[in-house]
Amino acid sequence: MTLALEQTAQDLLFHDAHTAYTFSDEPVSDEQIQAVYDLVKLAPTAFNQSPLRITLVRSPEARARLVEHMAEGNKPKTSTAPVTAVLSVDLEFHERLPELLPHAPGLKDKYFAEADRRETSGTFNATLQAGYFILGVRAAGLAAGPMSGFDKDGVDKEFFGDGKQKSLLVVNIGRPGEEAYKPRSPRLAYEDAVTIV
Amino acid sequence: MTLALEQTAQDLLFHDAHTAYTFSDEPVSDEQIQAVYDLVKLAPTAFNQSPLRITLVRSPEARARLVEHMAEGNKPKTSTAPVTAVLSVDLEFHERLPELLPHAPGLKDKYFAEADRRETSGTFNATLQAGYFILGVRAAGLAAGPMSGFDKDGVDKEFFGDGKQKSLLVVNIGRPGEEAYKPRSPRLAYEDAVTIV
Repeated sequence: MTLALEQTAQDLLFHDAHTAYTFSDEPVSDEQIQAVYDLVKLAPTAFNQSPLRITLVRSPEARARLVEHMAEGNKPKTSTAPVTAVLSVDLEFHERLPELLPHAPGLKDKYFAEADRRETSGTFNATLQAGYFILGVRAAGLAAGPMSGFDKDGVDKEFFGDGKQKSLLVVNIGRPGEEAYKPRSPRLAYEDAVTIV
Repeated sequence: MTLALEQTAQDLLFHDAHTAYTFSDEPVSDEQIQAVYDLVKLAPTAFNQSPLRITLVRSPEARARLVEHMAEGNKPKTSTAPVTAVLSVDLEFHERLPELLPHAPGLKDKYFAEADRRETSGTFNATLQAGYFILGVRAAGLAAGPMSGFDKDGVDKEFFGDGKQKSLLVVNIGRPGEEAYKPRSPRLAYEDAVTIV
């Protein structure tokens, strides 16, 4: 027992989980997404800055606007997934810091007055949260299909016209459909990824 | 039951888990870190590029070299943690793509010939993996103390002198010590982080 996490949970989140390329018709409810959010919001970010924002694409009209900016190979599955999440960084996350970090309200101005620094730190921490979110989708018993293949500027103009958010990742979410999974590709051996000094 | 993940696993990974600021003397074995790696390596990256590298800092000599580059407030805990992991991106991850993506060996040159594109994509995907790794540490029943407060250029020169890796995050790992945790700060409400369109 090297891991404390039960085998069934290891299987749900990692061993049996795969990126899904097709989805069933079973809908995904807002309650399910909220349960995912309420779990993954607890995982850490620097100074609790919590910069990840999630745009849940549900309406046919919004879906059409999103699909327009997806890479060709990602259009069919993004057109048919029960729900699709656009994960983005809030470039003005610092405005919420006084409530997120009530014991250190001065950090908002001390560290995050400059837009460049906010973007660097916010993007890094929202990306950590994107990692948590993918595992959170699996924790809900759902399959995730994360995609980097889309026109980021196009999505940003389409959904974040005020320039206050930047898209990071688009994630299809649902129950796996027919032939949803590809065989898992090999991973790097421990010795190839980990160095002890 | 909105989530499929058992409550005990939810608690281990999210509800009861906190960033640790002090650690006990109990050692962390290489076997524990390997179990963490063998779990989190399975979570997805774009094209299975798997760009995260982990440098486990164990020797007093290496620890002293690392502590030198940590922010003042991070030096004491980095000096006393049982083990510290420097998470980095391999900027030449594409060299491994032919074995990681055996069904599409051409992607190495099609998408990743340019160093800039490699750095952007590699950094994003290694950061997703850093998120998986933090949860993986918790899956081993250990506490993680992730830190962004360090001199990245200094760490890179010290540990990655060949310029082929860039540090992303430093994570102290161990059993929590006395007064290890701070009270959890508030998180954004679902309505503040999620927009439905």
